[in-house]
Amino acid sequence: MRKIEIIPLYYDKEILPGDDLGKIIVELAEKTGISIKNKDVVVVSHKVVSKAEGRVISLNAIKPSQRAIEISMKTGKDSKIVELILREASEVLKVGDGHIITLSRHGIVCANSGVDRSNSGGPNKVVLLPVDPDKSAEKIRVRIRDLTGKDVAVVISDTYGRPFRLGVINLAIGLSGIKPFRDYIGKPDRNGYIMRVTQVAIVDEIASAAELVMGQGSESTPFAIIRNVNYEACNECSCKELIMDKDKWLFK
Amino acid sequence: MRKIEIIPLYYDKEILPGDDLGKIIVELAEKTGISIKNKDVVVVSHKVVSKAEGRVISLNAIKPSQRAIEISMKTGKDSKIVELILREASEVLKVGDGHIITLSRHGIVCANSGVDRSNSGGPNKVVLLPVDPDKSAEKIRVRIRDLTGKDVAVVISDTYGRPFRLGVINLAIGLSGIKPFRDYIGKPDRNGYIMRVTQVAIVDEIASAAELVMGQGSESTPFAIIRNVNYEACNECSCKELIMDKDKWLFK
Repeated sequence: MRKIEIIPLYYDKEILPGDDLGKIIVELAEKTGISIKNKDVVVVSHKVVSKAEGRVISLNAIKPSQRAIEISMKTGKDSKIVELILREASEVLKVGDGHIITLSRHGIVCANSGVDRSNSGGPNKVVLLPVDPDKSAEKIRVRIRDLTGKDVAVVISDTYGRPFRLGVINLAIGLSGIKPFRDYIGKPDRNGYIMRVTQVAIVDEIASAAELVMGQGSESTPFAIIRNVNYEACNECSCKELIMDKDKWLFK
Repeated sequence: MRKIEIIPLYYDKEILPGDDLGKIIVELAEKTGISIKNKDVVVVSHKVVSKAEGRVISLNAIKPSQRAIEISMKTGKDSKIVELILREASEVLKVGDGHIITLSRHGIVCANSGVDRSNSGGPNKVVLLPVDPDKSAEKIRVRIRDLTGKDVAVVISDTYGRPFRLGVINLAIGLSGIKPFRDYIGKPDRNGYIMRVTQVAIVDEIASAAELVMGQGSESTPFAIIRNVNYEACNECSCKELIMDKDKWLFK
């Protein structure tokens, strides 16, 4: 029996620009009494990655554009936050009462381009997504390998809504060392029927599994280690592989 | 430290109509060397639920309607399967080359109304979704309680694609004994900022976590026990709470 474990790493200090996340994770694992093993998956909330990379913006410094002011009036959102949402978007898809859905610069369809006010470190601050989450994941992975000699996978997670379903779930926005899919195409099922379409987005399921211990509020658990996941190691893989080309979208 | 465990229950026999899933789960847990505990979450693949409930259809018996034949020509899908997809749909949303997206009778936006050819038990058979997955979950939960005296939660899972993202993930289609959301609305974050919108669809994250051990192909693991999840017990909750009213849809 291959039992999976989801191990929370509690950290109640504020992450500051320049903080060494790989080192923090290794130290927390030691403190928690588990040593990092080969093939562990380390899940990191994007928020601490953004903070370590200085992607926290003080709203005082933002001057909203005319377009941001217009969208602010339409949505009831703070015009300075709207300005940041526009800067982080490659395209605005939907604007309405209380919501702005964009295609983020990373290619993710999301609310507010991922610009987030919760757990930002202060009332007048917001957190933007990391500039290149795959690179952020790789940096943490290399650092963990340097410190421990262990080869892990790293997944950066963030919270997303769904178009036809209530509630948010965690998805992967960056990865290193792991193939994002578990691929069943061309493989037989139990009856020998050859499966034609199934690719499981395993990194998204890993991000969701980690959220069960990480939480969204005051839990102070920005890291989790998932142990015993059956995944394919991959050095050249990217979270961008999960992005569906716009010309394949069935809903607009 | 509250470590979550995801324990696979391997079962390589075919599930037959009338099979007692609650009893099978209890016996498998004993055989696996873990006894079921209060507050465990038992995740069950919808496919075995459908099989136990006789929701497997032989295609030989199906006569496609004129509409099914037309959609079959447009999509390249077997007209008998299209007929079943139409019967299981409350509304057809998109029809195109190779795909039929419907609103299922349960209110879920999905491909093919959940009609599924893989692991159906034979080349000419397809599996339909359970008629009332919440009721199916409740039946299993009550049976486990009767046999063990333990009060667990039960989640029925199925695989879904996402409108703007490649790969499928597991979501919950039925539940018993668990509140589907972990609710942060009105709660403070680490900085005291009051969160206004966040409801985490924890049953979907549980279904995704379970999929990491269950798999989609020949894994023969239709059950998983998830231990130590922080969830709110609920006797009157339903998976229907996750359904977004159609008038709230932003994408059509």
